[in-house]
Amino acid sequence: MTVKAGIIGATGYTGVELVRILSRHPGVELVGITSRSYAGMPLWEVYPHLYKYNGMTCKQLDLPDLLDAVEVVFVALPHGHAMPVALEAAQRGKKLIDLGADFRLEDYRVYEAWYRFTHTARELLGEAVYGLPELYREKIKGARLVANPGCYPTSIILALAPLLEHGTVDPGSIIIDAKSGASGAGRGLSPGAHFCEVNENFKAYKVAAHRHTPEIEQELGRLSGRELTVSFTPHLLPMVRGMLSTIYAGLHNSLTSTEIREIYSEYYRDEFFVRVLPEGVLPQTKWVAGTNHCDLGITVDARTGRVIIMSAVDNLVKGASGQAVQNLNIVCGFPEETALDGPGLYP
Amino acid sequence: MTVKAGIIGATGYTGVELVRILSRHPGVELVGITSRSYAGMPLWEVYPHLYKYNGMTCKQLDLPDLLDAVEVVFVALPHGHAMPVALEAAQRGKKLIDLGADFRLEDYRVYEAWYRFTHTARELLGEAVYGLPELYREKIKGARLVANPGCYPTSIILALAPLLEHGTVDPGSIIIDAKSGASGAGRGLSPGAHFCEVNENFKAYKVAAHRHTPEIEQELGRLSGRELTVSFTPHLLPMVRGMLSTIYAGLHNSLTSTEIREIYSEYYRDEFFVRVLPEGVLPQTKWVAGTNHCDLGITVDARTGRVIIMSAVDNLVKGASGQAVQNLNIVCGFPEETALDGPGLYP
Amino acid sequence: MTVKAGIIGATGYTGVELVRILSRHPGVELVGITSRSYAGMPLWEVYPHLYKYNGMTCKQLDLPDLLDAVEVVFVALPHGHAMPVALEAAQRGKKLIDLGADFRLEDYRVYEAWYRFTHTARELLGEAVYGLPELYREKIKGARLVANPGCYPTSIILALAPLLEHGTVDPGSIIIDAKSGASGAGRGLSPGAHFCEVNENFKAYKVAAHRHTPEIEQELGRLSGRELTVSFTPHLLPMVRGMLSTIYAGLHNSLTSTEIREIYSEYYRDEFFVRVLPEGVLPQTKWVAGTNHCDLGITVDARTGRVIIMSAVDNLVKGASGQAVQNLNIVCGFPEETALDGPGLYP
Amino acid sequence: MTVKAGIIGATGYTGVELVRILSRHPGVELVGITSRSYAGMPLWEVYPHLYKYNGMTCKQLDLPDLLDAVEVVFVALPHGHAMPVALEAAQRGKKLIDLGADFRLEDYRVYEAWYRFTHTARELLGEAVYGLPELYREKIKGARLVANPGCYPTSIILALAPLLEHGTVDPGSIIIDAKSGASGAGRGLSPGAHFCEVNENFKAYKVAAHRHTPEIEQELGRLSGRELTVSFTPHLLPMVRGMLSTIYAGLHNSLTSTEIREIYSEYYRDEFFVRVLPEGVLPQTKWVAGTNHCDLGITVDARTGRVIIMSAVDNLVKGASGQAVQNLNIVCGFPEETALDGPGLYP
Repeated sequence: MTVKAGIIGATGYTGVELVRILSRHPGVELVGITSRSYAGMPLWEVYPHLYKYNGMTCKQLDLPDLLDAVEVVFVALPHGHAMPVALEAAQRGKKLIDLGADFRLEDYRVYEAWYRFTHTARELLGEAVYGLPELYREKIKGARLVANPGCYPTSIILALAPLLEHGTVDPGSIIIDAKSGASGAGRGLSPGAHFCEVNENFKAYKVAAHRHTPEIEQELGRLSGRELTVSFTPHLLPMVRGMLSTIYAGLHNSLTSTEIREIYSEYYRDEFFVRVLPEGVLPQTKWVAGTNHCDLGITVDARTGRVIIMSAVDNLVKGASGQAVQNLNIVCGFPEETALDGPGLYP
Repeated sequence: MTVKAGIIGATGYTGVELVRILSRHPGVELVGITSRSYAGMPLWEVYPHLYKYNGMTCKQLDLPDLLDAVEVVFVALPHGHAMPVALEAAQRGKKLIDLGADFRLEDYRVYEAWYRFTHTARELLGEAVYGLPELYREKIKGARLVANPGCYPTSIILALAPLLEHGTVDPGSIIIDAKSGASGAGRGLSPGAHFCEVNENFKAYKVAAHRHTPEIEQELGRLSGRELTVSFTPHLLPMVRGMLSTIYAGLHNSLTSTEIREIYSEYYRDEFFVRVLPEGVLPQTKWVAGTNHCDLGITVDARTGRVIIMSAVDNLVKGASGQAVQNLNIVCGFPEETALDGPGLYP
Repeated sequence: MTVKAGIIGATGYTGVELVRILSRHPGVELVGITSRSYAGMPLWEVYPHLYKYNGMTCKQLDLPDLLDAVEVVFVALPHGHAMPVALEAAQRGKKLIDLGADFRLEDYRVYEAWYRFTHTARELLGEAVYGLPELYREKIKGARLVANPGCYPTSIILALAPLLEHGTVDPGSIIIDAKSGASGAGRGLSPGAHFCEVNENFKAYKVAAHRHTPEIEQELGRLSGRELTVSFTPHLLPMVRGMLSTIYAGLHNSLTSTEIREIYSEYYRDEFFVRVLPEGVLPQTKWVAGTNHCDLGITVDARTGRVIIMSAVDNLVKGASGQAVQNLNIVCGFPEETALDGPGLYP
Repeated sequence: MTVKAGIIGATGYTGVELVRILSRHPGVELVGITSRSYAGMPLWEVYPHLYKYNGMTCKQLDLPDLLDAVEVVFVALPHGHAMPVALEAAQRGKKLIDLGADFRLEDYRVYEAWYRFTHTARELLGEAVYGLPELYREKIKGARLVANPGCYPTSIILALAPLLEHGTVDPGSIIIDAKSGASGAGRGLSPGAHFCEVNENFKAYKVAAHRHTPEIEQELGRLSGRELTVSFTPHLLPMVRGMLSTIYAGLHNSLTSTEIREIYSEYYRDEFFVRVLPEGVLPQTKWVAGTNHCDLGITVDARTGRVIIMSAVDNLVKGASGQAVQNLNIVCGFPEETALDGPGLYP
């Protein structure tokens, strides 16, 4: 079986990461790639590491043309761009995996409040499935429209799901201190992405104002069965790939690290991509670089009555394009690890 | 006036940073430097950036000899080494500034519990002054034994002092997520300091177990007038210098960022080294690299009722050797900014 | 068909890179791994990025035991250690791929002069094959003892072979300015590998004295049909993986970049791993990170009558473990790209 | 005595580095700073590390206004912009130090050929002095128009001057392999300056085509008393500050490293900023970071009959703004080390 796929926005970092991952996929044929900035140019000229691997030329987006050619289309563009594509894809019965934010929030008013952008495809919000396979695998199987989660939310929701489902922690006490490599901000040019401003530097940004906040709260709220607010502070690391979220929550009962680790091990027993690290081992972002894994480390601080969860992902893989391919695998019936297997590059 | 000074442990990173800073000091003459590993070697051979600047040779420590020659001695060694030096210095009436942990904790039992090391100079704990000038300037003036604060505690205590003194936050709610450059761990060799393990990597370490915890709790407790425990999680950044602490605390009242910033501006009105950043500006470690500043940024999150304080220092300067010289300036009667003035290197 | 293989020295950087690459190899079963430092420890505890991928335990080397169990053994140790292994492997008729320097130089006196180490397996030098497949593929096919080239020599010999075979340049004029990421020096601890000394720093080392010099001269001499000496200057880059050699040679005739590129394209027409980059494209180390490629860029400077060749490899892959697996593929009859295919991680 | 100075282009990296250095200068008062991009904005808002140090506001350039207010003006802009300023400054009798390339080449036709830009101030080329103090100190003393050298030329000319003046090497054999940190390319935005493209990456650029080539050849030719061409290959390092040039030249006679080092020590006997490193010590860029030093290391390779000179500078200090202040000191009669003294930041 071969599935024909297309990528809208193939020359951003998540787009080209899709190309890399799909190049290892035996069941997917990439038949169309688009790029506004590089239309007419061979992809390898934009990304010479693909020389001899990819012979495709970037095209201007011709939506009907592209949708006719594919069964699945990935949208790897900033928020706002997937809505018209999704409407057209729905009409033509094509599946869509959106790496942006347009279909992650079930309430369009929350979307409009945080993104300051009118939602023009509200009628599709009902059928959109939040593409976190470890939580929503069954729904994803039949989905036509998959909203691939944000990078921060992926690392955070996977880290908290076992505790919230078990009611082990106080949902009102959650504080998330998250740190991301610079590739998370994409390939766009800005002073904040200049090498000389990022290297040997560290800062927080968008404190108490990052757009992933409502997405995190929606999913954590669903898991805990009640509305909640969280403190979420993103930081920019002087490195390219990798994201670590350090998460604090107040424990209802005085559980030990071992007991909590058992809850996690049980919860993720059948999940290949989530690795609950053994006692005394704390995750490092380099251990997951280039992989679709989410590594979790757990420490209970008996002195303060809090549990501290550390969660590491590669923001471009499990945090974006790897998870998107994982979703494609589920949607199209491939084994979930297809093209996503293998240890990362270390050191 | 010229003060004669010596450095015990001049070839570690804090030791050589003392040398760098003192080379600009018009009132201090460095008359002796010791090193166990490099005794007999000119300092510039160990640190060739000092070529043409420092002609001294590292000596094996001969304590009576050194103390006879100096008025002030810096101890830039790991914990445990300053105790015998302090006893001898006390006998000879010489002043000592200890960059290690031996005299920071007023209760020797707390020291022994966290450092797993017997305290052999308990009789001096009473006269030791915690060398954070912004809080204890008057005491430092007459001190003979100054316990220079740890790097993490410096960045954290300065960040929380105004709020705790004003009783603005719940002392039991404090969570500190701190990140340090690799120079904070010193020049010692270990797999964890290998370039290939640190670069393009990020991790937490000693979660809920770092030895700076009791020091932080002692000082925050004193400020808030009650005992408290904090969650404190240190992380290792893939960079050399710089430390950022992101601190969360629950607000008693619904204050705005502006109101809280006013508390800080007032509190630090006369402090040259603490810079309360204007509204909307968040600290970046590179802005303080090479300087003795502590930059503070303040955000109130009305949604969660928490205030988030970000505090940036150079771990080797305000976090260690710069503060030690600031203490020397106070102890010896120099203007406090001597040798510590001037903007940092950027980019 | 499954080939049983072992790795002596599995916990160094080239050893664990062999493990990573072989984990993708459908025809090789890894049956034994040894480590002096970590004997008795599961490999994933030393390298947690292998968690869930490799369940093997490191053993102390028991040479007869290991050789009995395998058909091919990799030696991933510093020079000097492969000689006794090779003697034993020869006796037992097992194939050996040595990633060290013991069998690269055909003249043991040159080895002893540069490595200051007595060669104790001279009788094997005659049958050892220099494992650069692009030049010696036919010989490697039947080899029992493969001397895997050094990282610098690989990048340099591939860069100069077409010119020297064609007699296009003056062999006496060759100057090689090479730069390597820090992983090239291995995982051993030394002040020169400390993060704080490498990051934001750059230096040359072992100028006119690096041990890869005779290996480079032996192979370039063979290609040009006469003895030659080269200037070879290695430098240390503040990055983990990647090596770029910039090579200068005087042209006999005034050829254009296009003409020289044609020579290269023809020479490497059937070589998958050597990518002769198109006109105007200069290699970047990141384009080959994690891959077995050697990317070549060519510029003729008509003003000076010199050609400048830039050659990029990943020092741990084509410069070490990838090439070793390429050699195994040739020796054992697998397609040469097996386990070595696929674009690198970018960015 | 106080000299009034202005900076045209104060918000680029060389501009703000001038501000930093001049903030330590007791004899210079900065009275005007201009910026096209940030006119109307306080400088500290653009560069918050200057908070509390600099209260000036960037202005749009009003040339007559600025020139009236100053005695010396620095132009820290890309080439082409200093010509009209110089004409106006000449008319008003004000001194100008140009950090760009407009007045470095004595032959305007060479300028126009390499920079593809018409020279509109040819009449000033005769009085412009090439601002390399170690070679042209006497001329600089009386200069009204100082052409501050390029960063690469500075590191290269200082490295070769002793050899060329002594006629020790073959001027036709010179090959320069140079590597620069990313700050050398300035603060402008481009894909090539994006953190994710620079970090963990290394490449050559503008091979055999960099505009510093004619400047290098002009000065080396002058030193050797004959026209010459050199091979000059710049590379981009994954770091912010620092430049290392590795220079190869064929020796006329078989001199030892010691003999050549003596030539250098004698040549630079009275030069504070040039440090000829002792035998066996090779320069590292971090040793000069933030300083105005040029560190030189010398190795003779008897096997090839070549000498290899390694030369390290901080591209923003001795390679730009530090040297500009050194020139100001000479022009205005201050001690040459004023504001430029002190060891660098290490690590």
